[in-house]
Amino acid sequence: MKIENISLSSDKEDVIILDQTQLPNSTEYLTLGTVEEMYDAIFHLKVRGAPAIGIFAAYGLYCLSRKIKEKEYDKFYKKFAAYADYLESSRPTAVNLSWALGRMRRAVEKNRECSVEEIVELLGKEAEKIQKEDMDMCQRIAEYGLTLIKDGDGILTHCNAGPLATSRYGTALGPVLLGRERNMNFHVFVDETRPLLQGARLTAYELLKADVDAMLICDNMAASVMKKGWVKACFVGCDRIAANGDTANKIGTSGVAILAKYFGIPFYVLGPTSTIDMSCKSGDDIKIELRDGEEIKRKYYQKPMAPENIKCYNPAFDVTDHELITGIVTERGILRAPYSKSLTEIMK
Amino acid sequence: MKIENISLSSDKEDVIILDQTQLPNSTEYLTLGTVEEMYDAIFHLKVRGAPAIGIFAAYGLYCLSRKIKEKEYDKFYKKFAAYADYLESSRPTAVNLSWALGRMRRAVEKNRECSVEEIVELLGKEAEKIQKEDMDMCQRIAEYGLTLIKDGDGILTHCNAGPLATSRYGTALGPVLLGRERNMNFHVFVDETRPLLQGARLTAYELLKADVDAMLICDNMAASVMKKGWVKACFVGCDRIAANGDTANKIGTSGVAILAKYFGIPFYVLGPTSTIDMSCKSGDDIKIELRDGEEIKRKYYQKPMAPENIKCYNPAFDVTDHELITGIVTERGILRAPYSKSLTEIMK
Repeated sequence: MKIENISLSSDKEDVIILDQTQLPNSTEYLTLGTVEEMYDAIFHLKVRGAPAIGIFAAYGLYCLSRKIKEKEYDKFYKKFAAYADYLESSRPTAVNLSWALGRMRRAVEKNRECSVEEIVELLGKEAEKIQKEDMDMCQRIAEYGLTLIKDGDGILTHCNAGPLATSRYGTALGPVLLGRERNMNFHVFVDETRPLLQGARLTAYELLKADVDAMLICDNMAASVMKKGWVKACFVGCDRIAANGDTANKIGTSGVAILAKYFGIPFYVLGPTSTIDMSCKSGDDIKIELRDGEEIKRKYYQKPMAPENIKCYNPAFDVTDHELITGIVTERGILRAPYSKSLTEIMK
Repeated sequence: MKIENISLSSDKEDVIILDQTQLPNSTEYLTLGTVEEMYDAIFHLKVRGAPAIGIFAAYGLYCLSRKIKEKEYDKFYKKFAAYADYLESSRPTAVNLSWALGRMRRAVEKNRECSVEEIVELLGKEAEKIQKEDMDMCQRIAEYGLTLIKDGDGILTHCNAGPLATSRYGTALGPVLLGRERNMNFHVFVDETRPLLQGARLTAYELLKADVDAMLICDNMAASVMKKGWVKACFVGCDRIAANGDTANKIGTSGVAILAKYFGIPFYVLGPTSTIDMSCKSGDDIKIELRDGEEIKRKYYQKPMAPENIKCYNPAFDVTDHELITGIVTERGILRAPYSKSLTEIMK
């Protein structure tokens, strides 16, 4: 299997993932067989990135379904749905999780006439299909994104929306990685992305592996590199896109977008149409996950780096206003403002 | 002595500083007697904050002068000047260092008729005067700054420009701390300030000690708290102000200013007139210190948090364009745009 980050065990009882929390220091694979282990893997970001979470949850639900002993549809469905609900509750912001689980759920519901055994088989196929579609999606997003930049350009990215977050090229990194395969050279500025350092740990790792020229910066240095004229475009991923184009992505993304606007740099969101949630009218409808302040004060450090009793505010995501977005690059093309119109059309 | 961060030993042979690199985990004092130790203390940020560096260097130069055995002026001056030059080379961006050393130098030069013993005594008085003036300066800046905010306001600050960085209230934190003494309550959002975490380690520590309501955030969360309407003003310190109002301060400051402008939040720079350098026409003339990328990849962490061979860009400061600055609060009043005019007038 080409894809290293998520795969099935040979007996199809477990999902095997590359533990992203251990990167870049070690490459550890985890074999996850219970719903609690799977919930924990998502919650603790062992698997992360909106598309990857969706793929993982689909495979996870398939493995869990195989272990349900019930042969009657209603009893099977009850257990199946409980697993799906539990997995869905692990992280609230990225829509791909509930989108993938929704597909799995419908695969069961619309085949209630089949035997449970047949349904389980269909679930395996659905999970594979979700992954396969994601690979195609990455390729297409990369192709569309590549039309937006020129060989030699400087690109700034935030967080990680590369291969680890998806199942192939990634979304935001797709154009850069595809371009590299075609012997183009980009200079990528990688925001370290506090507090969990997905940029420093994961994006830097992926870019080095792909032999892309990369420069790590702290999040607060983005304005400086933009001012120097080093950045020709910003490429970021997305966790949920509302019907008006407002986009939730990793905390700090909206700040990058505001800086880009100030410096006249185009700011692109790259993601599959599965990230679009037309039921959210605007960013105000997107639930933002708040995480433990210890991630800011202690995590990764040798000693606590702030006084023990200082309060913290630790939102995992923010919403970038649609007005700040130059284009949304999907597998079906590049959307432009007004997004309420272009999103409606593409989602028809 | 009220001031804890910088003081003289009782025999006046050494400068005693609170080691800021050990905060908030431990309160360690260092006794520094040689020019190498003093250089190292500035270079490694054991003493930091533009005004504090100036005070420290002045006291340091006084202690070193006491140990010069030469009795002839020229021989004394040669050694004295070598010490001053060496200390001045420790950090390039903050002007207060060269400003304070320049005052000490002039105290020697204009008293060449005196005996070396008398000159050394005058140096001690000059250093004390620099510190005393800094205390008065802090008080006045705090008073002026307090006129800009209302009881209950949310204030965002970046890096540390509090008591540890000066000799009393600090500059950017001055209005908040003075207000607290007058039973006012502000809500301060503290940018952690990567990579050296002066906000998390020092500002959070000072605000808790002063019983000010404080909330620690990662630098990339500033846009989120501003968007929520929680921030009524931004207060930051400064390391060098050019003749047109462009201001060098800790890396990330210019990004905060751009966000503040986008959200319509006033952005104030607070600092003594000793920070104004009319010989710099604009920010382009300000030398920005570049530091080791290991500060981003490894420092403070249990394990490296980025691949070993990833390149880093680590500027210690950035320049905030004068157009982004709502006002510059000095000990002589609040300056407004056009700064080329108001700065020229105040520096007459």
